[in-house]
Amino acid sequence: MKLLLHEIRRNPLLWLLIFVPVVLIVERTNPESHTTLFVLSVLAILPLAILLSHATESVAAKTGDSVGGLLNSTLGNLTELVIAITALQAGQYTLVKASIAGAIVTNALFMLGMSFLLGGLRYHLQEFNRISARFQAGLLFLATVALLIPSIIGTRVPSPTADKFNEDLSVALSVLLLLAYGLGLFFSLKTHRELFAGGGEETEAAWPIGLALGTLAAVTVLVALVSEVFVGSVQAAAISFGMTPAFVGFIVVALVGASAEMAAAFSAARKNHLDLSVGIALGSAAQIALFVAPVLVLLSFFLGPTPMDLDFWPGAVAMVFLATLTANLVSNSGRSAWFVGVLVIVIYLMFAAALYLLPPAGT
Amino acid sequence: MKLLLHEIRRNPLLWLLIFVPVVLIVERTNPESHTTLFVLSVLAILPLAILLSHATESVAAKTGDSVGGLLNSTLGNLTELVIAITALQAGQYTLVKASIAGAIVTNALFMLGMSFLLGGLRYHLQEFNRISARFQAGLLFLATVALLIPSIIGTRVPSPTADKFNEDLSVALSVLLLLAYGLGLFFSLKTHRELFAGGGEETEAAWPIGLALGTLAAVTVLVALVSEVFVGSVQAAAISFGMTPAFVGFIVVALVGASAEMAAAFSAARKNHLDLSVGIALGSAAQIALFVAPVLVLLSFFLGPTPMDLDFWPGAVAMVFLATLTANLVSNSGRSAWFVGVLVIVIYLMFAAALYLLPPAGT
Amino acid sequence: MKLLLHEIRRNPLLWLLIFVPVVLIVERTNPESHTTLFVLSVLAILPLAILLSHATESVAAKTGDSVGGLLNSTLGNLTELVIAITALQAGQYTLVKASIAGAIVTNALFMLGMSFLLGGLRYHLQEFNRISARFQAGLLFLATVALLIPSIIGTRVPSPTADKFNEDLSVALSVLLLLAYGLGLFFSLKTHRELFAGGGEETEAAWPIGLALGTLAAVTVLVALVSEVFVGSVQAAAISFGMTPAFVGFIVVALVGASAEMAAAFSAARKNHLDLSVGIALGSAAQIALFVAPVLVLLSFFLGPTPMDLDFWPGAVAMVFLATLTANLVSNSGRSAWFVGVLVIVIYLMFAAALYLLPPAGT
Repeated sequence: MKLLLHEIRRNPLLWLLIFVPVVLIVERTNPESHTTLFVLSVLAILPLAILLSHATESVAAKTGDSVGGLLNSTLGNLTELVIAITALQAGQYTLVKASIAGAIVTNALFMLGMSFLLGGLRYHLQEFNRISARFQAGLLFLATVALLIPSIIGTRVPSPTADKFNEDLSVALSVLLLLAYGLGLFFSLKTHRELFAGGGEETEAAWPIGLALGTLAAVTVLVALVSEVFVGSVQAAAISFGMTPAFVGFIVVALVGASAEMAAAFSAARKNHLDLSVGIALGSAAQIALFVAPVLVLLSFFLGPTPMDLDFWPGAVAMVFLATLTANLVSNSGRSAWFVGVLVIVIYLMFAAALYLLPPAGT
Repeated sequence: MKLLLHEIRRNPLLWLLIFVPVVLIVERTNPESHTTLFVLSVLAILPLAILLSHATESVAAKTGDSVGGLLNSTLGNLTELVIAITALQAGQYTLVKASIAGAIVTNALFMLGMSFLLGGLRYHLQEFNRISARFQAGLLFLATVALLIPSIIGTRVPSPTADKFNEDLSVALSVLLLLAYGLGLFFSLKTHRELFAGGGEETEAAWPIGLALGTLAAVTVLVALVSEVFVGSVQAAAISFGMTPAFVGFIVVALVGASAEMAAAFSAARKNHLDLSVGIALGSAAQIALFVAPVLVLLSFFLGPTPMDLDFWPGAVAMVFLATLTANLVSNSGRSAWFVGVLVIVIYLMFAAALYLLPPAGT
Repeated sequence: MKLLLHEIRRNPLLWLLIFVPVVLIVERTNPESHTTLFVLSVLAILPLAILLSHATESVAAKTGDSVGGLLNSTLGNLTELVIAITALQAGQYTLVKASIAGAIVTNALFMLGMSFLLGGLRYHLQEFNRISARFQAGLLFLATVALLIPSIIGTRVPSPTADKFNEDLSVALSVLLLLAYGLGLFFSLKTHRELFAGGGEETEAAWPIGLALGTLAAVTVLVALVSEVFVGSVQAAAISFGMTPAFVGFIVVALVGASAEMAAAFSAARKNHLDLSVGIALGSAAQIALFVAPVLVLLSFFLGPTPMDLDFWPGAVAMVFLATLTANLVSNSGRSAWFVGVLVIVIYLMFAAALYLLPPAGT
């Protein structure tokens, strides 16, 4: 407890934890003030995401390299997963899909680009482990192909059988993605660990295992509670802010969900640990695509009103494809300067501008 | 003859040659038992493809490096060519096109991926000649662009003139592909031979030229006869096995046609000659795209009921494009480990799953 | 003046300057003889483009490295810009868009491919500065994404609001492109100059600043006058030559506009200065996409009858995307041989053949 308080004193962002009770109280008293609830829930999720990330790292640090790496990889996007499960249970499949696609694009473009830019403003040229970057970019490319397949093939399917086909195909693709993800962990944590060295040792003083596990459990519950408010208020708030639903799902939810990883990636880039930044950005994008997305598809059979498929809006698929191609091209050389970051961020801004301007018409 | 018998004794797969007379007899006696004929014809084509491949290599070995390389490259996909010509004469253009696209995808993904995987299970890291791999991947990319053009441009063409346009365009693209193929041979066998060293010397003891030429001629005739049974039975058999026509053309025909090259590529990968495996997989894919496909288009003016164009089903074009992009990305680095193979194979399995689940509705 | 005459005597192409007065006179006397006017205007633009290019280089050489580089980059495609502005004022948006897309494709494929081929015919293997090539190819990729966005997103927009959306989106994308372009100049001319060394020193004896500035002004006016004849006659001439409007905009206008850069790029390639050739080809393509295209969109608010958007014909977008991907793949390795040039040129010829054969139906 003392350690937790020490942590809160050290990291001013954690002062935002005050908004966790505030948002839960306001939700009871003013359930219809969506804009306020939306802002409060964003402010409450930010510090929870940071705590969650720190607790995961601490558990990982105590359990040895392989299991720790596994935990880190699997729980690294716990915030996104909890938000998406909440939206799934509410049957908001459009929001779930937009936030999956948005999280991939945000991690692969904004987080990667900002890391290059922030690092590049301090250091003339930065190097990073290209083998590790290529591995993550390769996984990401695989997942993008999986997301492309339903739109590629779907067009020629006659409509009566289309739903059944989409459902079966989505399950098959999800199983293949999870298989690739599992084998990828085995590869990077076990058989070819030595290729992925460099980075990793960045973790701050780890918490004792009891505190870490307790925090992990408690904070996950809190994230789930706040996510419910967030998911319930986001669409109404979007309208009053003049944002399209597509923009909210793709950009706002993704930025909120990835805030903790971003803080870590940007701080590493500014310390010239670009290896770690690239690993967080691409690894996070790959994990959303290969772990979170298929898990949501499979969970939708138990949690959602109807099964969810992997048939995304073609515009979202195209953005994910272009984001992946960009990440592959820029991470290929293992070197970076500030302008590489600008290029990648400008592509992200172009997507954001298009989604922001889009007239609302069924996301 | 003695050598031929020796070969048959050495390679147990050649025992399957017994199915060649069997399938031809059954076709006379039970022309309607499509499923049986299909299975028998597959079993008969496998050993014929191996013999054909060995005979081609022997002729090539006797005729000196340049002419030999030319022969090897031109006749390397003779089995696929004969099967496709048979389907062409039967007017089964959908099958021809599916088998062309499927052969490219199968060679560029399944053969390449399995080579990486099989090699990677034995050796921690494998290296291969990246210049040669890039050359083949570049040729493949060129051919993919050619296949993309009719679907890119075709949409805006008004339907009355569309047929004429597609026909003219296909002939123009075919001539350009053959030109590029010819110049590519001149480049790799003549002006820049030294870049393509490494590999090649893998050939087993070559047959004397007479035996080789005789086998080449005789086996080609046999492949043609069996192909006729295969093409005639494949669609009916597919239905009784519950497979979609798209799956049959794309996956089954392609795997049968490429069986001989696969045997060679996998065996080389397990002997750490990954150069050779990559060369066979990408070279074979490039050759289908740059030689077999345009030859079939041009031959269709003489052999087919109507000219065949290069306007493929958009889903097939997308798969070929993604397969080519994958092959380009993974062969870029000149290094491989087992997980690279897994990634590539999973993309192939995703395509196969989509085609398998596809409700039949006019391939 | 003496220097200018000396220059004209040295470079036989400048004898074509005689066609400048000829075309302006014929336009007065025979305004309806479109075919003659078209041929004459092409013959007149060629030497003007060469003079313009030389004058720009001379001004650049006198104003120091950074400002000079800026001028060179900004005025390097002055001919294309003047032709496009003339077409813009005439409200010929289809021609403007076709010539933008065509200029990108022509520079990234034909100019690059011919440089590789011409250089490769003289030198066995050529090397070039891959950092600089990747930088230009990266900029080009960014611009291609911008051009893709309207067609990716546009489809789902209901038609009444579609025009407004397209207009807003095009302005936003144009501003982002110009921002990226400006930061790119700052990067390559200021903060990371040292990465872009090699090449550049190729300039011939520079003219004195007075002559250079005078020529720049006078020739720009002449190009504008001749462009008006060119734009007014090109469509009618196309029909009488049996060419489609798409072919004219994409291929003919682009080749005429880029003639001066091509002369420079090809001559550098034959002197083994492939750095310079690749820089001109990719730099020119990037500049059209990041500078000329957005400037035209923004100018259309003042000069054109209605605002012009960035919503290109999907076939054009696909060609630009494939051209960019090709340029990225081939410039990645920093090495070239003659066959690389063949591959790139064949892709260009495929596009040209498709556009040539296309039945006319509203470009």
